[in-house]
Amino acid sequence: MYRSHNCGELRMDHVGQTVTLSGWVQKSRDLGGLTFVDLRDRYGITQLVFNMDENQVLTEKARKLGREFVVRAEGQVRERSSKNANRATGNIEIDVKDLQILNASKTPPFTIEEDTDGGEDLRMKYRYLDLRRGPLQRNLMFRSKLAVETRKYLSDVGFIEVETPNLIKSTPEGARDFVVPSRMNPGEFYALPQSPQTFKQILMVGGFDKYFQIVKCFRDEDLRADRQPEFTQIDCEMSFVTRDQILDTFEGLTKYLFKQMLDTELPDFPKMSYDEAMERYGSDKPDTRFGMEFTDMTETVKGKGFGVFDSAEFIAGICAEGIAESYSNKDLKQLTEWLQRPQIGCKGLVYAKLNNDGTIKSTVGKFYSDDDLKLWAEKMGGKSGDILLLLCGEKEKTQKQLNELRLEMGRRLGLMDPKVFNPLWVVDFPLLEWDEESERFHAMHHPFTSPKTEDIDRMMTGDHETMKALRADAYDLVINGVEIGGGSVRIHDRDLQSKNFDLLGFTKEEAEAQFGFLLGAFEYGAPPHGGIAFGFDRLNAVMNGQNSIRDFIAFPKNTSGRDMMIDAPSPVDNEQLDELYLSLQEIEKSGA
Amino acid sequence: MYRSHNCGELRMDHVGQTVTLSGWVQKSRDLGGLTFVDLRDRYGITQLVFNMDENQVLTEKARKLGREFVVRAEGQVRERSSKNANRATGNIEIDVKDLQILNASKTPPFTIEEDTDGGEDLRMKYRYLDLRRGPLQRNLMFRSKLAVETRKYLSDVGFIEVETPNLIKSTPEGARDFVVPSRMNPGEFYALPQSPQTFKQILMVGGFDKYFQIVKCFRDEDLRADRQPEFTQIDCEMSFVTRDQILDTFEGLTKYLFKQMLDTELPDFPKMSYDEAMERYGSDKPDTRFGMEFTDMTETVKGKGFGVFDSAEFIAGICAEGIAESYSNKDLKQLTEWLQRPQIGCKGLVYAKLNNDGTIKSTVGKFYSDDDLKLWAEKMGGKSGDILLLLCGEKEKTQKQLNELRLEMGRRLGLMDPKVFNPLWVVDFPLLEWDEESERFHAMHHPFTSPKTEDIDRMMTGDHETMKALRADAYDLVINGVEIGGGSVRIHDRDLQSKNFDLLGFTKEEAEAQFGFLLGAFEYGAPPHGGIAFGFDRLNAVMNGQNSIRDFIAFPKNTSGRDMMIDAPSPVDNEQLDELYLSLQEIEKSGA
Repeated sequence: MYRSHNCGELRMDHVGQTVTLSGWVQKSRDLGGLTFVDLRDRYGITQLVFNMDENQVLTEKARKLGREFVVRAEGQVRERSSKNANRATGNIEIDVKDLQILNASKTPPFTIEEDTDGGEDLRMKYRYLDLRRGPLQRNLMFRSKLAVETRKYLSDVGFIEVETPNLIKSTPEGARDFVVPSRMNPGEFYALPQSPQTFKQILMVGGFDKYFQIVKCFRDEDLRADRQPEFTQIDCEMSFVTRDQILDTFEGLTKYLFKQMLDTELPDFPKMSYDEAMERYGSDKPDTRFGMEFTDMTETVKGKGFGVFDSAEFIAGICAEGIAESYSNKDLKQLTEWLQRPQIGCKGLVYAKLNNDGTIKSTVGKFYSDDDLKLWAEKMGGKSGDILLLLCGEKEKTQKQLNELRLEMGRRLGLMDPKVFNPLWVVDFPLLEWDEESERFHAMHHPFTSPKTEDIDRMMTGDHETMKALRADAYDLVINGVEIGGGSVRIHDRDLQSKNFDLLGFTKEEAEAQFGFLLGAFEYGAPPHGGIAFGFDRLNAVMNGQNSIRDFIAFPKNTSGRDMMIDAPSPVDNEQLDELYLSLQEIEKSGA
Repeated sequence: MYRSHNCGELRMDHVGQTVTLSGWVQKSRDLGGLTFVDLRDRYGITQLVFNMDENQVLTEKARKLGREFVVRAEGQVRERSSKNANRATGNIEIDVKDLQILNASKTPPFTIEEDTDGGEDLRMKYRYLDLRRGPLQRNLMFRSKLAVETRKYLSDVGFIEVETPNLIKSTPEGARDFVVPSRMNPGEFYALPQSPQTFKQILMVGGFDKYFQIVKCFRDEDLRADRQPEFTQIDCEMSFVTRDQILDTFEGLTKYLFKQMLDTELPDFPKMSYDEAMERYGSDKPDTRFGMEFTDMTETVKGKGFGVFDSAEFIAGICAEGIAESYSNKDLKQLTEWLQRPQIGCKGLVYAKLNNDGTIKSTVGKFYSDDDLKLWAEKMGGKSGDILLLLCGEKEKTQKQLNELRLEMGRRLGLMDPKVFNPLWVVDFPLLEWDEESERFHAMHHPFTSPKTEDIDRMMTGDHETMKALRADAYDLVINGVEIGGGSVRIHDRDLQSKNFDLLGFTKEEAEAQFGFLLGAFEYGAPPHGGIAFGFDRLNAVMNGQNSIRDFIAFPKNTSGRDMMIDAPSPVDNEQLDELYLSLQEIEKSGA
């Protein structure tokens, strides 16, 4: 037997008992006659004591233990003379009578502590050591518990978890698919699912009524810090429900998860239309923990001879409160430069400082009188001590830039309290996006999303401009500016689905080849249905107030899609390629 | 609102209430003035009634409903005059006041009933219709609940569910990997996991102590009826445990699942060594619901001039009880022919009929006296009315053939009670199998399995013959002759693991290239660990007394690895292949 107890459970009640513990040597201290060893496992840390006077051989053995050695120790629980209140086992220690080294360890390349000295690459390569650290252990235990609670809630309200296949069909829509050559079907390929979208709709046609799955999905996209080629969704679908019944169900789930995991009571989730979100925040995922909402100044500021404004399609601003004194001209210059970086791409920043003494200082003071600027302040809700920040240009672009500015000011002014969670449903997204370059429509959500009921007639008969204005019955769940989930009411009518494929530029043949099974299914009694998918990795990160999903994934890949620990992907044998009827192209020629 | 209640919940208590139901038309009957429609959803069937005298328009609308139309009906619950005791809602019906057709349906290509008239291929193509049938709905709900209960039990005893990656590294060991070309790493490939084996071991090195995952695995093997290219495992691993602690844990899980799902109390699981299982049943997964165990007759039957026996390495038999009267010579001839089919490959069958009148009739009566044959009967436990069935030949081959015969007789004699579940741990498997053809050892379980502690020294220093006799600390869970799970105590020592790779014919470089991360991990304090994986698809089938896993998978593939519904795999664009730096070989040339 390796252990009678784990390293986190011994208390004063156990004093006097003979116990066996196994674990890793966190550290050892040699204090002359006494040697102390901190023994660690997933459950905690327990102090082992070796006494040179009582057992010289054993104590000398203990002195030779290196960090991360795996040992088994047997001994008696006793009260500590100097207690450690920061540790659950801090009142006791083990007077060790027997010590067995189960495995030695080389010196780890970085410290296995709460904060490590290891760099990102080293920690990825030695992921098995990084995983021993408290933060990663807690993150993955949080994730495991979040999955348990998710399943509990959804099962309790009648959802059935159904596994959908991973080897499916490649569809050149949306992001790139990962493909899998089929040996048994030469020249043919499976694709890994970007989501189980069509299968969950098929399950609704199959009468499953309420489906969910916590499921891996795959996208062969160029990666960013918060993207992974494989990621996990809480994927859900329901039949015979209205949009608001869907939203209520998943608002319920979200509230339950926050309550169970963080003991946080979320308020009821407000709903905001996409249009309103864009007008007020310039974003379809606004961080509503703070105000600093947009004011459209287009009408107000034109006609005073300031050419930049006069020629702009759109001028809008935000009011940054209480920083007129603390923000110097130099600070504002730096802020302007920050906005002018190519990532944001502003031409410039117009500001008006509402000084505490009542004076107003503006970069465009020569075009605008104090009265003009007072009108600005009035419109934008500015008061003494605030700074008004204005951007201008093309409307959509300016909204995006002002959104970046608002978020940056929110960060700088500490308005994003990590302990506060502000949920929001963003609803009524556009159905279609017109892409000027390819001269075609893209589905804003995906090709299976239904237009709002009142837009269906216009969709079936309308002209090109009508199509641009169609609203989808689609919704996103946003918390603290992060899109946690998104979904829609789906089309369940074959003709409407065909029309949508048509608008998206699929020929009849293409639609039939790729989605024929779904169109076919719609002819055999498809129920009204809709659903949602939550980004599970992101939900974990957001609930823990963190930006990166990587530390909530046991074995993440780096931004080149590489698993640094196992060193994958890797070349395969020609023999294996031959079995798949594949050849490698000359990679130089292909321009890699 | 589509419904106030589902189609399975209305009872006498609801009489008088106005309700709304939605669902599929199961069938409709037109009885002159009254039209009855059975409305079906996942929860049940409720009878709708339309009365021509009261509402002609509505009733005419109802008469036009076809099978599988999706409708919404509003009306009043009332007591039925002719009750249906076979249906949970059989006491009531709905007097419909409003009917809305939500979607029409073409006539389905097969009947959507408990037993359907649809053939296998048709049902696969129209899986969404087959999924509406009771048996498939119940199977998938069973599966969903089995996953819930599995997670509940394992969570409650401290296991953490951790997701391991699906895009991993190709290793040319075991079955064939599915590979996934990496666009971002030209010429390189990921592999889909055959199991999360190395990752779960890494999680143990990472200190996770108790891991589980219900996880998809992938094997590119030629398929049989009960194999799928993607399948699901309950994958588990534990640290600081002995073999028996592992077995106890998963015996506990299995008992819990049978209790929760089937209200069946399983007995304690006996343990039987691989050697014993082979001697007694000729199989490492014996069906222990019935006896008919092997008797080794090699010594008993030799030396009487019957050349076939005299020259045979091994002779063994089973005693089929009580069939001496009912089995004619013709039946025994047919049985012999059954054994001679190439799938089994017996040369012949020797039998001795112990007639009720005390006479004995045998195919080899001219070589053996009645006293000889009485000795056979004594050895094999035969009594009047039984037939002794003997096979001979090479030992291993004969054991396999006699196993087939035993199972066939078990089936014919109705000894496999589907209501009885006989669990068994088969333990102490051979560590290595010698393959004459390739002149190399294969791992019987997998390359990470530990030899039994007492065999380690012999493994590190022994000769070739010694290696053949090494026992592994490996175990299978067998229920009713089906392998439900298998696992082992793992190697956690770098030198021992290197030695094992060495024996398996890996060069140092190959071992390093493929498993370097694991060997590396073993140098940084790997704990003793071991685990198990259950075949989740098969567990579902066995618990329901069924042979095929296919009806427990929502979207299975056929034996060519094809999803008949979505028609995958399928060709991909050349453009997509170019992005992956791949070309298709001439498929004719390659001999496909």
